[in-house]
Amino acid sequence: MSEHRFTRRAAIGGAAAGAAGAALPRASTAGAAAPRQMEADVVVVGAGLAGLMAARRLAHAKKSVVVLEADNRVGGRVLNLPIVGGKITEGGAEFIGETQTHIAALAKTLGLKTFKTYNEGNNLYYRNGTALPYNTTGPLGPVPPDPTGSAEAFKALQQLNQMSRDINLNEPWNSANAAEYDGQTFETWKNNNVFTPSGKFLLDVACTSVFSAEPRDVSLLFVLFYIAAAGDETHPGTLDRLVTTSPGAQSDRIVGGTQLIPIRMAKGLGKRVVTGSPVRKITQKKDRVIVESDKLTAVGQRVIVAIPPALAGRLQYSPALPALRDQLTQRMPMGSVMKVIAVYDEPFWRKDGWSGQVVSDKGPAQVTFDNTPPEGKPGALMAFIEASTSRRLNAVSKGTLRSMVLDNFATYYGDKARSPIAFYEKRWDNDIWHRGCPVAVLPPGVLLDYGPAIRRPVGRIHWAGTETATFWNGYMDGAVRSGERAAADVLAVLA
Amino acid sequence: MSEHRFTRRAAIGGAAAGAAGAALPRASTAGAAAPRQMEADVVVVGAGLAGLMAARRLAHAKKSVVVLEADNRVGGRVLNLPIVGGKITEGGAEFIGETQTHIAALAKTLGLKTFKTYNEGNNLYYRNGTALPYNTTGPLGPVPPDPTGSAEAFKALQQLNQMSRDINLNEPWNSANAAEYDGQTFETWKNNNVFTPSGKFLLDVACTSVFSAEPRDVSLLFVLFYIAAAGDETHPGTLDRLVTTSPGAQSDRIVGGTQLIPIRMAKGLGKRVVTGSPVRKITQKKDRVIVESDKLTAVGQRVIVAIPPALAGRLQYSPALPALRDQLTQRMPMGSVMKVIAVYDEPFWRKDGWSGQVVSDKGPAQVTFDNTPPEGKPGALMAFIEASTSRRLNAVSKGTLRSMVLDNFATYYGDKARSPIAFYEKRWDNDIWHRGCPVAVLPPGVLLDYGPAIRRPVGRIHWAGTETATFWNGYMDGAVRSGERAAADVLAVLA
Repeated sequence: MSEHRFTRRAAIGGAAAGAAGAALPRASTAGAAAPRQMEADVVVVGAGLAGLMAARRLAHAKKSVVVLEADNRVGGRVLNLPIVGGKITEGGAEFIGETQTHIAALAKTLGLKTFKTYNEGNNLYYRNGTALPYNTTGPLGPVPPDPTGSAEAFKALQQLNQMSRDINLNEPWNSANAAEYDGQTFETWKNNNVFTPSGKFLLDVACTSVFSAEPRDVSLLFVLFYIAAAGDETHPGTLDRLVTTSPGAQSDRIVGGTQLIPIRMAKGLGKRVVTGSPVRKITQKKDRVIVESDKLTAVGQRVIVAIPPALAGRLQYSPALPALRDQLTQRMPMGSVMKVIAVYDEPFWRKDGWSGQVVSDKGPAQVTFDNTPPEGKPGALMAFIEASTSRRLNAVSKGTLRSMVLDNFATYYGDKARSPIAFYEKRWDNDIWHRGCPVAVLPPGVLLDYGPAIRRPVGRIHWAGTETATFWNGYMDGAVRSGERAAADVLAVLA
Repeated sequence: MSEHRFTRRAAIGGAAAGAAGAALPRASTAGAAAPRQMEADVVVVGAGLAGLMAARRLAHAKKSVVVLEADNRVGGRVLNLPIVGGKITEGGAEFIGETQTHIAALAKTLGLKTFKTYNEGNNLYYRNGTALPYNTTGPLGPVPPDPTGSAEAFKALQQLNQMSRDINLNEPWNSANAAEYDGQTFETWKNNNVFTPSGKFLLDVACTSVFSAEPRDVSLLFVLFYIAAAGDETHPGTLDRLVTTSPGAQSDRIVGGTQLIPIRMAKGLGKRVVTGSPVRKITQKKDRVIVESDKLTAVGQRVIVAIPPALAGRLQYSPALPALRDQLTQRMPMGSVMKVIAVYDEPFWRKDGWSGQVVSDKGPAQVTFDNTPPEGKPGALMAFIEASTSRRLNAVSKGTLRSMVLDNFATYYGDKARSPIAFYEKRWDNDIWHRGCPVAVLPPGVLLDYGPAIRRPVGRIHWAGTETATFWNGYMDGAVRSGERAAADVLAVLA
């Protein structure tokens, strides 16, 4: 399979693609050797939540639209994993929570039901060989009960919340102290404000579990923006919400798995969605835009590129992108993460009073959740493998990874954990259509000099994706919001 | 023109490409519609100094080689600009200096002569509306004579030199204090060690003029590595050498312009060099590698990719690159810089006792050089426009840029500067085959987690380019060294 197997046709039929009212794009095939051609009002690149949401809005507005997806499935960073017994768990984004009203509304519209993330019993804090049970309803909120580090970690959390209040969500680069905040790494801020090894460790775990990046990888301004974005128009964002299960960003799950959201959206869009067709080139003409993908060439008035900037930078553009936009795509790397899930006949840890949630200094499985389906069986214990650890291990064999993870699980919950009935992994860094997850993580200086290029259209090219969101950036809710915003932007300018 | 105008041929003839002793690659053309096919021992991507040097070494060793260059010219970041009167100045890399023995030897071998960068009379330091003449032979070395900032800037320079002594050039990530240094930006280090506004300004100018990046954009570890690399096997690198004209990295120029180096190398390689043929895809098979470019598909035993990582990340790879290498390409952005040159009948500033070298807080032309050809006429005043300033201005009109620059030049050297006979600009950020210059600039955390992937081959793919150099990284000398190293690596494994 190659993008070369189709030759382009010289004649692209006229400017006006898909008359208003034509809900389906118009396809044509001219002989076996020619590429399929399609005309639509709007072409969407990427069938993740953002692209599908944009397409859905456009279709509802009676505009013709075609969605080109590189992978053989829809959903992007949202991916169901079928496990034993016909059940489902998630290899990608799985949680929704308070103030994430757009993803919640969408799921409801699609007829999907939610259930509570398992959050009963005690969490486990494991450090320096000692296991301590805790819950998040005490005075320290989500901060684990470290004998020496909790107090200052809690203070740091409050400071970060306070600082995030002054962030301008639409233009973080214009916030008070933006230059100071974007001049330093989160690591620097941590070292200037947290002094015990355990306090630093707790900040490290918060950073790696939220961003899948080390504190040295991200700018303080980006961290504060991300915290500020963890809310909605009436609820200021907080770090507590990011790291707490319930009430927080991890409180609910979707019955049947989160990928049902994009799957049902794609079903509604029908033939408008073309999978297995990577986009290679976007050519802007005076009156139209031509989007070449492996399976077909789509011509529209506008294109919405709904893939992460790092991947969007790998497409060809004619004319070339403006320098600021191109250099932006060089500066928004994806986080580094794997998800691993061990499946057992039942969630045996529950009987021992454990929630399945762990924060640990033992790796690679430092942060875990109970990912058991709503029926309560089979038991599924999920771990995130984050940042440096993911980078170090992304080439090891499945067997090696499995035995390292099961060893961690046995440390937390006993030897039963060593004998799962199945074991699953999803290495996002290795996925060629993603090359990292959950979101682009911005180093110092990027927001300050390149921020304005994140959402600014380039001629007929509009940008969507959770990286462009001002609320819940990096989350499914942000992706949905970005698709809604991009669709509205395009509807406002369509002929 | 499109990469689609050729269809691939199904049959690639056998494994052994170019028998030993075959100095020229074997070409075949099968009909007008088919792509040219070529077989060679080694395929080189990019006809900059690194790629050409590698090809030259391979050809000398009687290996067949083909160099595929995207642009319609050779040289990469080395580019002659013809100016009025049939003379030449440089739009890209132009200086060579002490300890840069590899580029010097190459130029000599190619029959090229050097001349001294004009460095007589006084440099000019312009800050807060005051102009001060200075030279670099005093006790403060290259540090301009700022009334309040020079002393601490000089101390900072000495500290940085001292710290750079402990850098492991082959494995900076294994240096003492690597985690501490790679955890912070150079901006953070500056703010912790330099306290006057003028001292900070002097460090800012040093950083932007060396890296074309702001202090917040780069990791302290990367800065120290780069300083340590500014030397050779017997002369430790120093920041002084980076920022001083002579003796330093800017001491000499090439008669006829630096691009004569790649042009003469390409001439020696003859038909082995194919320009105007962007590489799109690299496919590794068990016994060969297939490199598809717009004009031809080359098949070899090995490929040397001699383009910057950010651009190499935009090619397609089959099988896909390992995750660590792919994520590395997301994390090595190019610096941001333009060069502008005003040409006058003669270098009138010389008569007033000025060297043409300026360090200024007035922009966009904050750092200038006398770029007059060796004949002494016409006069050429060159300025670098760096980092944030380049990013802010890379979309302004030529007229706007010209008038801003000439206004600066008039401030430094009087109203005569307002009336050049010609004005030239080269915006590297906007060049679609470069997307920035002079080098990849590494944010915090990249060397620590991704450093080992910078040079590590991926199967039959080897990496060259100044970004892979351990001496004079970012300079022409580093590019040449990297080509030599890559050729040696490949020669050691060729069948």
